[in-house]
Formats: sequence, structure tokens, C-alpha cells
Amino acid sequence: MKNIGDAQGVLYWDMATIMPSKGVERRSEVMAYLSKLMYDLETSKEYNDLVYGLHEHLEEMDDKEKAMIKAAKKSLDFMNKIPEEEYLEYSKLVASGENYWADARSKNDYEAFKPILEKIVYFNKKIAGYIGYEDTPYDALLDMYEPGATVKEIDKVFKELRDGLIELIDKINASDVRIDGDVLKGEYEIEPQKKYNTELAKRLGYDFERGAIAESAHPFSTNFGNKDVRITTAYSKEDPLTAMYSTIHETGHAIYEQNIPDDLTKTNIGGGVSMGIHESQSRFYENILARSQEFIDAEYPNMVKAFEGLKDLTPFDVFQAVNDVKPSLIRIDADELTYSLHIIIRYELEKMMINGEVNFDELPELWADKYEEYLGVRPDTFAKGVLQDVHWSGGMIGYFPSYALGNLYGAQMLYKGIFRDLPDYHQLIKDGKISEITKWLSDNVHSHGGTYEPKVLIEKITGEPLNAKYFLQYLNEKYSKIYNL
Amino acid sequence: MKNIGDAQGVLYWDMATIMPSKGVERRSEVMAYLSKLMYDLETSKEYNDLVYGLHEHLEEMDDKEKAMIKAAKKSLDFMNKIPEEEYLEYSKLVASGENYWADARSKNDYEAFKPILEKIVYFNKKIAGYIGYEDTPYDALLDMYEPGATVKEIDKVFKELRDGLIELIDKINASDVRIDGDVLKGEYEIEPQKKYNTELAKRLGYDFERGAIAESAHPFSTNFGNKDVRITTAYSKEDPLTAMYSTIHETGHAIYEQNIPDDLTKTNIGGGVSMGIHESQSRFYENILARSQEFIDAEYPNMVKAFEGLKDLTPFDVFQAVNDVKPSLIRIDADELTYSLHIIIRYELEKMMINGEVNFDELPELWADKYEEYLGVRPDTFAKGVLQDVHWSGGMIGYFPSYALGNLYGAQMLYKGIFRDLPDYHQLIKDGKISEITKWLSDNVHSHGGTYEPKVLIEKITGEPLNAKYFLQYLNEKYSKIYNL
Repeated sequence: MKNIGDAQGVLYWDMATIMPSKGVERRSEVMAYLSKLMYDLETSKEYNDLVYGLHEHLEEMDDKEKAMIKAAKKSLDFMNKIPEEEYLEYSKLVASGENYWADARSKNDYEAFKPILEKIVYFNKKIAGYIGYEDTPYDALLDMYEPGATVKEIDKVFKELRDGLIELIDKINASDVRIDGDVLKGEYEIEPQKKYNTELAKRLGYDFERGAIAESAHPFSTNFGNKDVRITTAYSKEDPLTAMYSTIHETGHAIYEQNIPDDLTKTNIGGGVSMGIHESQSRFYENILARSQEFIDAEYPNMVKAFEGLKDLTPFDVFQAVNDVKPSLIRIDADELTYSLHIIIRYELEKMMINGEVNFDELPELWADKYEEYLGVRPDTFAKGVLQDVHWSGGMIGYFPSYALGNLYGAQMLYKGIFRDLPDYHQLIKDGKISEITKWLSDNVHSHGGTYEPKVLIEKITGEPLNAKYFLQYLNEKYSKIYNL
Repeated sequence: MKNIGDAQGVLYWDMATIMPSKGVERRSEVMAYLSKLMYDLETSKEYNDLVYGLHEHLEEMDDKEKAMIKAAKKSLDFMNKIPEEEYLEYSKLVASGENYWADARSKNDYEAFKPILEKIVYFNKKIAGYIGYEDTPYDALLDMYEPGATVKEIDKVFKELRDGLIELIDKINASDVRIDGDVLKGEYEIEPQKKYNTELAKRLGYDFERGAIAESAHPFSTNFGNKDVRITTAYSKEDPLTAMYSTIHETGHAIYEQNIPDDLTKTNIGGGVSMGIHESQSRFYENILARSQEFIDAEYPNMVKAFEGLKDLTPFDVFQAVNDVKPSLIRIDADELTYSLHIIIRYELEKMMINGEVNFDELPELWADKYEEYLGVRPDTFAKGVLQDVHWSGGMIGYFPSYALGNLYGAQMLYKGIFRDLPDYHQLIKDGKISEITKWLSDNVHSHGGTYEPKVLIEKITGEPLNAKYFLQYLNEKYSKIYNL
């Protein structure tokens, strides 16, 4: 099954990075065929007997074995509950979804994407029903990306987060400090950016003997075991920092996968344990690490060498500019502070779609209304609004909360783990010794693969359950310095 | 089976263009798994019964149906005769072969590649034995790439070709005209080359909505149906013409596949009929068309615009330089005239390897000796000698003759088909109306897919069986003009 999964992964990578547009129809057929093979394997009597049989002997197993069997059983339960025909139809739909989305976004044509989105939501709703849930169908979808997470818990944590963010944004609005994030903008060729990002990824600890960087409409990372772990980036000719921070983000995901131990890599727990923990790593590198003053100070000479346009700025100018708080329309361009509000909007809309509380004709307006309410900005095109993200086109509903959870996990690890074990953390960054921080993450997070559920893992590392306190503390400390609060 | 075949094709493309080096072990496992799936499908009782059953009703079918069933039966005969275990072992071997070869070549380390090559030859010999042959095991291998071709026939045609070539080379050596092919050399960035080659491929009729160009160590083309047909190129910083002619060559292959009709593309005859006919198309575009004075005259302004270093040359200088006859070491850099001698050397060595007439320790010396004898040059590294080609590493023994056969087919089509149907052929090239020539090739060659065997096809088009006469006539006419013979 790992073999088919890897083949599917390569076909997906190829589709997103280089496949010609008219290849989509044929590719969908091949993807659907592989999904059918996977389905047949997973639903075979031999495999079912094996997994359910082993599951009765969990008490005799160590943590890793337990996790493997539990994960296999979860996936089987999923398969056994969804009728084959619907599963295959859905697989084909989401295999071609990204091309429809990319085309619709480039033409700013919501109507072209609407029927696809409706079908995807329709299937997700049905899938949630098949899988089952206690409180609400969205719980079943959440559980796919963040095992054990529920709407009830997330509503609570997101409320704490949202109140704290709004309070901090109010303080910043009242501050006299004004930052101009646009000072970074100019005209930048793509080729030097490619070169810079490759070197940057190396400096962060990404191993190119086991990795590669390509371009795609929406950046992502993917891997085939721990020795072929790839990322993509999307370049902007106006702002080299867009690709830079996107590369750092994806590199964070990739470093996680490259550091999975060899004895786990071929098993079904040989990857990151959840999307939230995965995002904790990518967002740790992107924000906590790479938007810190220490990192900018250390990286500044390399940046100026690659992008002459930055040479009139001081390191502190760059540090301020990459931490400029400015409510905006595009999630992936959002600053670290308002970012979580973009997520909360998507989380709310997803819940509404799954609960049948939204008319798809009105979705773009509803999106725009929420942006106006939470962030004070309103998209004037679909491309800058409801069509901006790739996720839904691939069937990923219930994924977005992971990004915000990742922020919370990461900050909690920083305050209750890294500061404890690496008291010279800030000096390490100043000295460019990022490998020692990566080693800590590797020992405490990456090395476990999927052995421990997120809840267990975060408590194991930090000694307490997930909460929004540390992320808010981190933001308050950082922005107090920047905005003189 | 088409689905698995396409998945394998994408995995191969990915491996050759972007996969990180350490990904090779895992990739080999995935490729071997897919080969096993393919093997299981092809050897299933249902499929065998179907094909052998239909084969008994050939007389009731039209040409296309006949060709489909014959091709399916041929492939089944092949499968049924090779023991499963050996087939899987061989698949795994050739899946990883290219990486071993690329590594060995980059390190100039023949010893590192020798055991792989020995194994590949060993398996090919066994496979030939399983398949069966009348005269000599090499016939069985030839038949895979050029159905119906035999050593007996090829020995005869290649002798005619070789004698003719040597006679012409002697005349050229005696000529007073001296051409300096090096005038094209200089310093050229890769990026402008990429841009130029993309535009050039478009001008030749390659459709980028159904295609893409990437880089790989050794250029190749591959396709997944007729709507996703890709090529790769290898760039040189010293000579932009290397990539240019390699792009034209692969574009010739790709145009063939893009012009396969929709009703054939999903069938087992939905591709080029043989490697030789495929090479006739790629080499027609590369040599007959793109090394003609008419083409250079028409293309010259674009070349100079892309490569300023060429601006001091006249179109005739360029025409002469790309037709410089100079015996050399590297096949893919060889001129059109000596090229076929590179092929004849490989053909002779392959026959010897398969017949067990060569000690692998001595292969590099034997290679060097033959180069010295036929071409008067001797490689001083393995990389410039026996390690220069990718083919053997992927198990392709019996393929090389196709290149020379392609030259012969192409010239025969020109003299006995194109000149008849398109009397203004030379003017069309001058006017940049290549689409009309492509249309002739499409109508007469591409549109048939794999319907007619090469022998039938060439006689259908030209009214006579394959021979070396027209290629030698073409070369004599062309080089008489260039070398004032």
C-alpha cells in the first residue's frame, strides 16, 4: 500500500509542478485507477483479517506497534464504511479538482469552480456520515487531519485565541509606531530567487541529496519515505520575501519528514503524526525562528547579497517589515498576527458548508462579509477571496484549523520545552547554529513519527495540554518590542 | 494496463528529471511493485483467454483491430515465456540502473557500472533465449524495438551504409574545404537557451498545452496518451546548438505522439509503431529539416536574437558549422554523416556481448579500439567512451540500430514520398511553413499509430522496401554542396 501511495504522490507532484494542462483528463483516470487498486487492497479479506486480528493483541505491543495497528484499523474502518463506488467517484473528483480550481482562479471565475466545490462538500458531508461522529459531522473531518480534535475543543481554544488576538490588534492600532511593509517590494528576477531559496533551505538543514525544490501555483511539500522529501515554492517578481518565507515554511515540513527514523519510514506511522503537529514545525521555522530579530540579523548579509534592492534597509528595517501587522486579503501573505483570523474565517465557513447552512451562490459574499467583519478588508475579486486557496479543490475540508493549531503547539513547545533545554536559544540563532534547534525538534518531535497522538505528544513534551496561552504570550512579547506597546 | 504503464512512465520521468539521488532505492521498490502488478495483470487467466481467443478471429477484423490483437499477443507471448521471478528481478535492476550509470559516468568509474551492465546483458541473453529466435539471440532483442528486423537484414543494410559512408568521408577528407564547427562555441547562460528552445519547439509545431520541457542527464521524450507528451533537454554552457538540436530531435518524437489520433491513443497501438520509425521522425526534424540551408536561413534571425554570440556569423557560416564533418567521441554530439558509424560500433558490441564474445573487463578497450578503427579517435576517459550512453543502464540492448534505421527510413520518405507530394518542399522550409511538412508526416506516418509494421509502412509510403540508397544519395547531394565535391 505504501508503494501505491508513493506512486500516487509522485503523480500528484508531477501534476502540480509540470503536467501540461490538457493532460488532466488522462491523469485523472490513472489516479482513479490507483485509488481503486488501493481500495481493493485495503478492503481485501486477508488484510482486514490481519489488521483486526492484530488489534485484539494491542496489550502485548510496544508504543510503536500499537500506533501502527491503531492507524491501520482507523484507515480500514474508514474504507469499510464508505461504499466503493462513492469512494472511487470522489477520488476522481478530487484528482481533477486542483486543475479546475487553478483555471477558475486564473480567470477569476467562481461559477466555474462552484459545481466542483459543491460536489466536494456534498461528498465530505456523506463521508462524515459514513464515518460517524458524536456531536457534529465536522468532527469526523477534523479527526482525519488532527486525530482526536473536536469542534467543542477547537471552538474553545479558538475563542481564547481570537479574543487575545483582537486585544493585541487593538493595542497595535493604538500605537504610534507605523511600519511600512512595502519597503521590501521592488523588481526581482525569478532566477536569483531560486538560487537564494536553495541556499537558504540548505542553511536551515534541508538535505538536497534527499530533496528537491520545484514551482507550483500553491506551495506544498510531499515525500516518499525519508530519503525523497520535496517542496515547491511560488515566486513573486515584486517581493522576494514571499517565496523566501514560503520556502522556509515548506522546509519546516520537509525537515520533519527527513528526520523520521529509518526504522519507521516504511511503516504507516513513518510520517508526521498530524497536520497540526506538521504545521507546528513549518510555522516554527517560518515565524518563531525566521521572523525573529536574531534570525534576520544573521541572515541579512545573505539576503542583501541575493537581492540588491534590499541594500538600503537596515536589518531592523527588514525585521520590522516582515512583522508588519496589516489586515489583508490573502492568507498566505498574511502577517503572523492576523493569520489565525484568516483560519478562523475558513473554519467557520467550513462548518457552515458541512452543516448545510450556506447557499453556494452566496459563499463569496459571506467570505467577503467575514473578512470585512474580522479584518476590516473586503476582496473585490473571487481570486482574492473565496478562490484563493487550493485546499478545498483537493477535498481538504477540516484541514485549515491545523494551521492555527500549529501556531499554538509551536509556541507551547518554545516556552515549555526549548527554553528549558536550550537556554542559549537566542544566541544559537544569532550564531546561525540552527542545526542545534533542529536537533531538539528532531529528538522531541520528528523522531517519534506517528507513534504518539498529538494530545499525548504535546503533553509529553511540555507537561500540559494544548492551550492558547503561550502563543498569545509569544505574540505579546514580540509585538510589544516592535510596536512599543 | 495502460494506467499502470502511464504511472510507470511518470515515475520514470520524475526519476530522470527531479528525483533526489538518495530517493533511488525507494523508487526502485515502487517501480518493481508496479511491474509486478503489470505482470499479474498480463499473466491473468482472464486476460490471456481474451487475447488468445480474439487472436483466432483475426480474419474478421480490420487493420487496426488486427494490429491491436497481434501486439497484445506478442506482449503476452513475451510474458508467458519469462519466469515471473526473473522478470521482477530484472525490472528492479533496470529501474535503478540509470542512477548507477549517471553516478558512474560523473565519476568516470567504469568498475562501478560494470557489474550492473553484466547483469543487464546476462538477463537480456536469458530473455532472448526464453523468447526464442531463428538465427541468433540478438534477433529476439531487435524484434522488441523494430518488429521483424533481423541481424541478417541489418548486417546487409549496415554494410551498404558503411561502405557508402566511408566512401563519402574519404571524398570529404580529400576536399580543400575546411569547416570550423567551433565558431559556434562561446559562453551561453542556460536561461536564454531554455527560452529559445521553448519558442523553437513551438515553431516546429509542438503543442505546449499538451507538452512540457524539463532537464535531464540524457535527453528523452515520454508520453501519457496524446495529450501529455513531454521532452527533456540537456544544456551546455559552451554551445547553445547542442541543446537546440537535441530539442529538435525530441520534438520530432513528441510531434509523432501528439499526432496519434484520439481513437487510437488509449489502445495498445496508440503510439509510434517502432523505435526505427520513431527515430525517422526525430531525425527527420533534427537533420533533414533543421540542418538544411533553407531552415538555417529561416531560423537565423531567431538564433541571433537569442544568442548574441552568433551575430558575427552569416547564415551560411552557421549552416556549414552545423554540418561540419569531424569524427568525434560522443554520439549525441556527432555530425550527421559520422553518426551512423557510432551506431554501427554499438551494434557490433551489443551483438558480441549477447553472443558472449566479450570480456567485460576489456569492453572499454574494445570500444576505444573500434572508435580508433572506424573514426580515428580514441576516448581517454570512460565517460567519453563506454559510459557515455544511458541506454544499456535501462536494459535497452537492441535499440541502437533504430537510430541508423531512422536515418534510412527518413531519407526514403523524403525522396520517394515528400518530394512527390510536396514539390515546393524547400520553399515551405524557407517560408517557415513547417506545419505543412508536419501535416504530410502526420497523414502518412503519425495517423497510423501502430497499425502497420515498419516494413509494411515504409513500402506503403514509398513503394519499395527499406534500403540505404536514398540516405546515401541525400548525404552525397548535401555534402557535395558543402564540401565542393
